Amino acid sequence: MRSPRLLTICCLAFAAVAASALCPISARAEVVRSPDGIIEVEVDLDNSAPFYAVRRFGGEVIGRSRLGFVLTDGSQLTTNFKIVSAEHSAHDETWTQPWGEKKNIRDLHHELRLTLEQQDDQARRLVLVFRVFNDGVGFRYEFPERASLDEIAIADEVTEFVLADDADAWWIPAMEDNRYEYLYRHSPVSQLHKVHTPLTLETDSGLTICIHEAALYDYASMTLVGKVDRTLEAELVPWSDGVKVHTHTPAQTPWRTIQIVDTPGELITSYISLNLNEPNKLGDVSWIKPGKYVGVWWEMHLNTATWGSGDKHGATTANTKRFIDFASRYGFDGVLVEGWNVGWDGNWYDNGEQFSFTQPYPDFDIEELSDYARKKGVYLIGHHETAGGIDNYERQLEDAYDLYERLGVRAVKSGYVVQGQNIRRREGNKEFREWSHGQYMVRHYQHALETAAKHHIMLVVHEPVKDTGIRRTYPNMMSREGARGQEYNAWDWQGGNPPDHTTILPFTRMVSGPMDYTPGVFDLLLEKGDRPNNRINSTLAKELALYVVIYAPLQMAVDMPEVYEAHLDALKFIRDVPTDWEDTRVLHAKIGDYVTIVRQERDGEDWYLGSITDEVGRTLETPLNFLDRDRVYVAEIYRDADDADWKKNPTAYEIDKMEVDANTVLTLRLAPGGGQAIRFYPKNQE
Amino acid sequence: MRSPRLLTICCLAFAAVAASALCPISARAEVVRSPDGIIEVEVDLDNSAPFYAVRRFGGEVIGRSRLGFVLTDGSQLTTNFKIVSAEHSAHDETWTQPWGEKKNIRDLHHELRLTLEQQDDQARRLVLVFRVFNDGVGFRYEFPERASLDEIAIADEVTEFVLADDADAWWIPAMEDNRYEYLYRHSPVSQLHKVHTPLTLETDSGLTICIHEAALYDYASMTLVGKVDRTLEAELVPWSDGVKVHTHTPAQTPWRTIQIVDTPGELITSYISLNLNEPNKLGDVSWIKPGKYVGVWWEMHLNTATWGSGDKHGATTANTKRFIDFASRYGFDGVLVEGWNVGWDGNWYDNGEQFSFTQPYPDFDIEELSDYARKKGVYLIGHHETAGGIDNYERQLEDAYDLYERLGVRAVKSGYVVQGQNIRRREGNKEFREWSHGQYMVRHYQHALETAAKHHIMLVVHEPVKDTGIRRTYPNMMSREGARGQEYNAWDWQGGNPPDHTTILPFTRMVSGPMDYTPGVFDLLLEKGDRPNNRINSTLAKELALYVVIYAPLQMAVDMPEVYEAHLDALKFIRDVPTDWEDTRVLHAKIGDYVTIVRQERDGEDWYLGSITDEVGRTLETPLNFLDRDRVYVAEIYRDADDADWKKNPTAYEIDKMEVDANTVLTLRLAPGGGQAIRFYPKNQE
Repeated sequence: MRSPRLLTICCLAFAAVAASALCPISARAEVVRSPDGIIEVEVDLDNSAPFYAVRRFGGEVIGRSRLGFVLTDGSQLTTNFKIVSAEHSAHDETWTQPWGEKKNIRDLHHELRLTLEQQDDQARRLVLVFRVFNDGVGFRYEFPERASLDEIAIADEVTEFVLADDADAWWIPAMEDNRYEYLYRHSPVSQLHKVHTPLTLETDSGLTICIHEAALYDYASMTLVGKVDRTLEAELVPWSDGVKVHTHTPAQTPWRTIQIVDTPGELITSYISLNLNEPNKLGDVSWIKPGKYVGVWWEMHLNTATWGSGDKHGATTANTKRFIDFASRYGFDGVLVEGWNVGWDGNWYDNGEQFSFTQPYPDFDIEELSDYARKKGVYLIGHHETAGGIDNYERQLEDAYDLYERLGVRAVKSGYVVQGQNIRRREGNKEFREWSHGQYMVRHYQHALETAAKHHIMLVVHEPVKDTGIRRTYPNMMSREGARGQEYNAWDWQGGNPPDHTTILPFTRMVSGPMDYTPGVFDLLLEKGDRPNNRINSTLAKELALYVVIYAPLQMAVDMPEVYEAHLDALKFIRDVPTDWEDTRVLHAKIGDYVTIVRQERDGEDWYLGSITDEVGRTLETPLNFLDRDRVYVAEIYRDADDADWKKNPTAYEIDKMEVDANTVLTLRLAPGGGQAIRFYPKNQE
Repeated sequence: MRSPRLLTICCLAFAAVAASALCPISARAEVVRSPDGIIEVEVDLDNSAPFYAVRRFGGEVIGRSRLGFVLTDGSQLTTNFKIVSAEHSAHDETWTQPWGEKKNIRDLHHELRLTLEQQDDQARRLVLVFRVFNDGVGFRYEFPERASLDEIAIADEVTEFVLADDADAWWIPAMEDNRYEYLYRHSPVSQLHKVHTPLTLETDSGLTICIHEAALYDYASMTLVGKVDRTLEAELVPWSDGVKVHTHTPAQTPWRTIQIVDTPGELITSYISLNLNEPNKLGDVSWIKPGKYVGVWWEMHLNTATWGSGDKHGATTANTKRFIDFASRYGFDGVLVEGWNVGWDGNWYDNGEQFSFTQPYPDFDIEELSDYARKKGVYLIGHHETAGGIDNYERQLEDAYDLYERLGVRAVKSGYVVQGQNIRRREGNKEFREWSHGQYMVRHYQHALETAAKHHIMLVVHEPVKDTGIRRTYPNMMSREGARGQEYNAWDWQGGNPPDHTTILPFTRMVSGPMDYTPGVFDLLLEKGDRPNNRINSTLAKELALYVVIYAPLQMAVDMPEVYEAHLDALKFIRDVPTDWEDTRVLHAKIGDYVTIVRQERDGEDWYLGSITDEVGRTLETPLNFLDRDRVYVAEIYRDADDADWKKNPTAYEIDKMEVDANTVLTLRLAPGGGQAIRFYPKNQE
């Protein structure tokens, strides 16, 4: 019979082992904290399998979540690891954007590089890099060069995000068609199926979280698959053969980002994604200039003009001159022309191969128009719709940008309206159908961007792959669509965008970057068009407010010249509002209900306010403490009239002028579905 | 065969009738709008039955809701009405509170008086009075003198509140025990059973609504019964015989109030309830003075002293002197003494008749202590616990207040710890059991208040009937309990108040008026007590913040002198903080998560900030734009230490001093379960 004493010792030893297995931070766990100490990321092995967890103020935000990969040869990079090294470093740098929503951005973070090695003959290595900011976490995988790991074909990235809380998620589905153009819905994270990122979450505990990715290059884009236990699993968009990513060492994945803030408004001013991208690689970018444009486009949605040739052809020399004249008269920088090039006749949607990117329609004299525009002090904005014909486009890419560069076209809007697994890729005689957000297309979008840069052309991409902050590295990447834009309001078979749509975008789509929403419709009942059931679900004042709320460096004024000329007083706001900002602040923020944003003109004194609401009218108390305390300002207020209402009276607006200062508290009265736009300028500038 | 033409005419006529029945505003409907035109109340008859509906920005907030009464004789005042007259008026007045959370209050409203008459021989009349403010609606019934309606016994008030939206309700149950001392819960309004008011609702559309009553006199208090169709029905607390209210014409009901605001914070600064009460009826109220107090009380909850006589008796002459000395040394105005009077021995809880309100225990020399206090510049605060023995208390009321007045006792805390249908009322030989919130007790509370006023004594009522703003009319009605206060933290069998409790109170209980929560425990682990499982679920900094967050004109510092003397640096905030304010503003507000309130000292320059959070740590960006722009201030910051945590490290606090001005933006870092308190004073005052 053993002595009781010995028995006791054995029990204690066992208890210690058990505690170590249960305890969230074992003695060995690597912990990296945000510079302010509030966010804490634990990275460790659990039975040789890497995991991470995120806490904030000691409370769990992301529970133990798996990390790693399964490769197509059946091998895995998910377990059997040991930790080889852990390097900690701190980083604090302030850098300047060439253009953007904020001039100077501080990159303040703590980094952990954890090198793992598999405990077998191959000794494959995986490096986990975590950067912890005061407002969230970014992490990526690196595959170092290794004799045992050269070519990599990823079958599955097993990254998980185990939400501590059954948060309310604001999401769009990642469906077969792979589009981003859905109305946002919200439901508990445990009820999600497959969704796109940015995925924005409001937790029961009151936090706002956004899961997304940064610096997506030569990799597949990530969707998230929800499980009932509140786990979100990364699911990469595959190649046609099911492989997710082909790469070879040394390689690295995009950053997976988890922004964590106390209020939804802070998501709008969180710059983690930009900070995780590399600095400008283009050198001198003085040729990249934010601005505003009008163009030949909205009339096609009104069905009073067509992209294709014929009587109603929009992109004629005469019609384009009309827009150039208008742009020149009212200070717009560019004139977009869609439907200028051969290929828009017949069933172009199913035959992207038919587009020429150098041959204009005969009634569009591109040389004359380029001259005419130059003399008028504006530039043409080119247009490339691929309709999924990537091979065709890539064959012409060099010539197409060369033509535009020669003609002084400084920006191009591209389109990829055919989405889903509908991208034809040829290899010799074989044809494959690739997904529009897989690695193949990520490579293509990048190739087009770099080609544009070579020709000093700015890019606005419709039906893009999602924005992951690469504009920091390639500042000619201006804006993207990537959500339901204004045109949905002109398509009654799509139901239009309900009034809450634009109160959700700032907290979801816009977290990824600028958007080419194309605001500014004044003829809200679409009386110029021939689709009587269509209408813009907005008020005129709200259309103005969108110029502040929805950031785009190249911002369109979408309506027709004659409509604007009938409302020159309201047009003044669009003429005045900048597209490049010193700073951005959020004054009110409730996802899906309302948002108020103020932005200061870059290198200037003026401030601009945009406030919008959903279908509910509201009054919002607004202290103007962002203004310089030593100045008196004039506020030019563009507001909903007292009887305005998006349904009954959308175009009723008032313009008031008043003196204000930093102590003024304005009550913004927003009509149902309405908004308010204000320009503040120092009084002595009058 | 009729002509097709005639048929058409008939159809149109029918359609017109149908439209009129469906249309929410018929031609006859009386509509009264808020002064800013945003809220609109429709009052009308539907088949001779009165109803009202409330819209805001044209959107329905309260759908068609019934109005009227059923009387105990079987007659009804719910239908068979015609409209006799409709009078509209406008009102705009600013009045001054003798003390309060805001000095000057504007009463700006539009009024509709609609006189209804029943279409029968009796021709009984009912007047509906609606007052519409920019932040909500109040309405009441008036019963004019009428030969056919003299004595009234109300069987049922049929007032309804039909919520347009299945709003999230923050509620406490109206149970058999009739207490208000429950933790708040929240659930959709369609799932409510029977709840107390104030009932706070957050709608899907983003509005915050609070339903309550104002000016409750000689009437039963109102509870609300929820139906699955989102209708809340008024249910009055009855007399023991089931009759709800006995009255005779002319009479009027309390006001039913519906506050409707865009953000939860605006509920805190909505003064509808005060505006619906009559002005001060007490004349010169210079004897009413807000202040702070300490006292013989907390030690009874710690179980180191007793209310009753014996070795541990708390209210001894010596112990009271200790508190008087402490109060005098540190600038407190009053010293509360509970357990001073004969009656606390034996089973007092079930025998409220045994209390004497004039005879002190022999070891409590009330005359000597009154002298001692006076010489030390403080006053005693008396205490009257009735334990439901209302007859006994009312018999002694005059003598009790007379004694206190003679001794210089300037405030009395009363208690009615026995609640529910447990109030003994005798009529001759018969005994009845009355409800603690029915008309009988409403009359008693008022009688006690007016008796106190006659003797120039301020009243703090525990286990009160709810606050309905009568402090405007009787300004000696200082504060009430009427929710779970600090003492629940000392009772481990009650589980304590979880950290979110005080983040819910400002938006629920506090909407009704000041609360005697009794904050300020520094010994949060209750190490002075003998109940090792008890603890305060707070941090020390949060306890300080409660002095700003939870308004009370007579505010207690609840802990023991020796505890405070060990933390004189933190005590300084309690010594400094006023209890009477020039103005109140809400900087952050999320019900159940966090709240930040700033208040300006009445007739002074200083501002005080209190910010608290629930169990989740947070950082809150806080612009100080409320400060005078032309001054520099010193901020004395009492904050959670970086490693503070309500569970693990509650007493870790830091005190910082820094210069700030109106342009400063502070980041408040609140520990889990923590808070922050700041005094701002002009720099030249140093």
